[in-house]
Amino acid sequence: MWVPKVDRVASDAHILTVELDDGTSKQYTLQDLKTKFRSRKITAVMQCSGNRRKHMSQGSGRPTNGLQWSAGAISNASWEGVLLADVLADAGFDLASGLDGSSEAKHVHFAGMEAYSASIPLKKAVDPQGDVLLAYSMNNTPLPPDHGFPLRAIVPGHVAARSVKWLNHITLSDEESISQWQRRDYKCFGPNETKVDWDAAPAIQELPVQSAITHVKMGGWADAAQADSRQGGAGYSPPTPRLAAQKVCLSGYAFSGGGRSIIRVDVSLDGGRSWSQARLLPDSVDEDGSSHGHWSWKRWRFDSSAPLALFREREQRKDYPANVKSEATEAAPAGEAENDGDTGRRCTTVLVKAIDDAYNTQPETHTATWNLRGNLATAWHRIQICADCSSPATARPPAPSTESGEADA
Amino acid sequence: MWVPKVDRVASDAHILTVELDDGTSKQYTLQDLKTKFRSRKITAVMQCSGNRRKHMSQGSGRPTNGLQWSAGAISNASWEGVLLADVLADAGFDLASGLDGSSEAKHVHFAGMEAYSASIPLKKAVDPQGDVLLAYSMNNTPLPPDHGFPLRAIVPGHVAARSVKWLNHITLSDEESISQWQRRDYKCFGPNETKVDWDAAPAIQELPVQSAITHVKMGGWADAAQADSRQGGAGYSPPTPRLAAQKVCLSGYAFSGGGRSIIRVDVSLDGGRSWSQARLLPDSVDEDGSSHGHWSWKRWRFDSSAPLALFREREQRKDYPANVKSEATEAAPAGEAENDGDTGRRCTTVLVKAIDDAYNTQPETHTATWNLRGNLATAWHRIQICADCSSPATARPPAPSTESGEADA
Repeated sequence: MWVPKVDRVASDAHILTVELDDGTSKQYTLQDLKTKFRSRKITAVMQCSGNRRKHMSQGSGRPTNGLQWSAGAISNASWEGVLLADVLADAGFDLASGLDGSSEAKHVHFAGMEAYSASIPLKKAVDPQGDVLLAYSMNNTPLPPDHGFPLRAIVPGHVAARSVKWLNHITLSDEESISQWQRRDYKCFGPNETKVDWDAAPAIQELPVQSAITHVKMGGWADAAQADSRQGGAGYSPPTPRLAAQKVCLSGYAFSGGGRSIIRVDVSLDGGRSWSQARLLPDSVDEDGSSHGHWSWKRWRFDSSAPLALFREREQRKDYPANVKSEATEAAPAGEAENDGDTGRRCTTVLVKAIDDAYNTQPETHTATWNLRGNLATAWHRIQICADCSSPATARPPAPSTESGEADA
Repeated sequence: MWVPKVDRVASDAHILTVELDDGTSKQYTLQDLKTKFRSRKITAVMQCSGNRRKHMSQGSGRPTNGLQWSAGAISNASWEGVLLADVLADAGFDLASGLDGSSEAKHVHFAGMEAYSASIPLKKAVDPQGDVLLAYSMNNTPLPPDHGFPLRAIVPGHVAARSVKWLNHITLSDEESISQWQRRDYKCFGPNETKVDWDAAPAIQELPVQSAITHVKMGGWADAAQADSRQGGAGYSPPTPRLAAQKVCLSGYAFSGGGRSIIRVDVSLDGGRSWSQARLLPDSVDEDGSSHGHWSWKRWRFDSSAPLALFREREQRKDYPANVKSEATEAAPAGEAENDGDTGRRCTTVLVKAIDDAYNTQPETHTATWNLRGNLATAWHRIQICADCSSPATARPPAPSTESGEADA
């Protein structure tokens, strides 16, 4: 679709029409929004329902329709705007009737200047802790054109498809939007369903728990003898070179929808046989933010040391990008490749899964959540790392040093 | 703990004290509650965090502390009472400050007549769609003594441990309850954590998505020839007896916390290799209910016909109850037991998983969600059914007819 161009100088005259379910409507210029309402600032994720679709296609071995995103169809930014609830109230809507469910209106439709439209449940729009914004600023500057300049909806905790850009029309309704983006796209079905009844599944709104590894840094070989000898007393025998270990630093993001916080991130260096917890990093949310929910992603980091014995997988499946292994391969018994000696590249699969404060967690594989649109690929994120590269098996040309490489380029 | 005995005749004089965070308090008799406030009725699940703990212990092969519940530590009932929010407002609390997060109070503590206490987030208590009740009635009669007669909290969508029975004290606070049931019990940790830092994990409140098979009915052998011949035209060859199929009817429950609805229930008759969707049954909620969220469980039913070829597993692991197979066994390659002939009992593993409207789903196995308390065992529920019994492999003495047997006795 085309990207509407709005003249920057004239942008304060951009008009938003708000239409209530009783047919009355009221218009606001962007200048009105900026001056008549209190501004709010939140830090919130925008995640496409297709994030990690490539992992679903490759992990399940079944194709999916849509852009084959790796783990990069997600972002986190600071947004500033006014509360949708404040504007609805100003336009004459009784917020209390929306809050207690007695209102006839059940959905809020957003339409943009180009053609796109979508809707969210009214309850989200009027929740005093829902933080739905009509936003004119991103990261403390006016919205970039690609982010909907001069005005967009920000629906934190929901799939990005509901945060409509170039917003110029809001409508309250008893029905959800009839747009194809509401009714025929952002939904999931069973792994067996290849001809689907679109009406049978609800539109994706709140997102499920998700996580991904975005950086791998390998620190070269540490002689385990050095490390161990600090603890070794009398009778200590230095280990053979085969007992060497390699420093591994993994980092990434975790996020859950609906304002649910990430309470734990579990990491495995051995394909899921054993686990440790990653360190959750401090949030980089705006200090003057007025956020109620956990709308920001949680960054995590895991520093460890991986003994050579872990690297038991032979590099394989070269028809796939090296950072993705099929789950079927993953499930093969461990230890079979131990005799590679020095002739093959020795690899291991590292993975991450997150848990949110409702204790929901991610599925192990994509096989049982496969859906033809490849939406909501949230299975454990696995990447193969290589002991013989001193850089992720995945990085574009192997880095000359031990610097980090993007796991998903 | 002891069950407080309250005289039925005197129960209307039972006193509830409500203490606000400013130190003021107000007392209500049960009679006051019944007469001063509008009554509300909801149908809601009570689920113990230990529901299906036995499945976690046996599925992961690792012991857990606590009662080894199968899938029966859950119930669904109709509750009647008054809204906690209405009572808090009457006692002088500003609900709006709780709703928008500006209140200093952040938690609501419930204490019962015996010793038990626990708390919930204030936001849940004041949410106009949160439906937190002070309940005096269950299934249209006064609460039974074991359900907290004469008054209990009902916190729908949250773990049952927060629905405090024999309720006589409510306190608003900036901290959650310091009771052991809040701080040292209902929490989960990583599968590697056997000595835990209790403060590191949040208390379980909203529950994750869950499902279970509660009944299996097998319909005896249907000669596939009869069924197939209806479609067979000229040249049709009747199949051999080995192509016979057996009718299988599975049913059970599915539930998710936080008011999230169940949107789909997936069933597999072959241990997860292929899937179908169960039929979601109409809710049996009270017609005069004033429920805002999806607090009731969703009953489901799946009718199918399982060809003999599916029954490829040999009955095994007799040290476990027959209805539970270890996940390690589950993962073994299929088809190895096909040559059992008529000498062994031929079985297959059927399983269920549910998906809620935030598209969260259940983990495949208990291995990666194991925690030492065995809380929130939500992995796919698997049971082994037997082709040679015409009743679930699990039922106590095989039924003489084809009547249903409880999968989890």
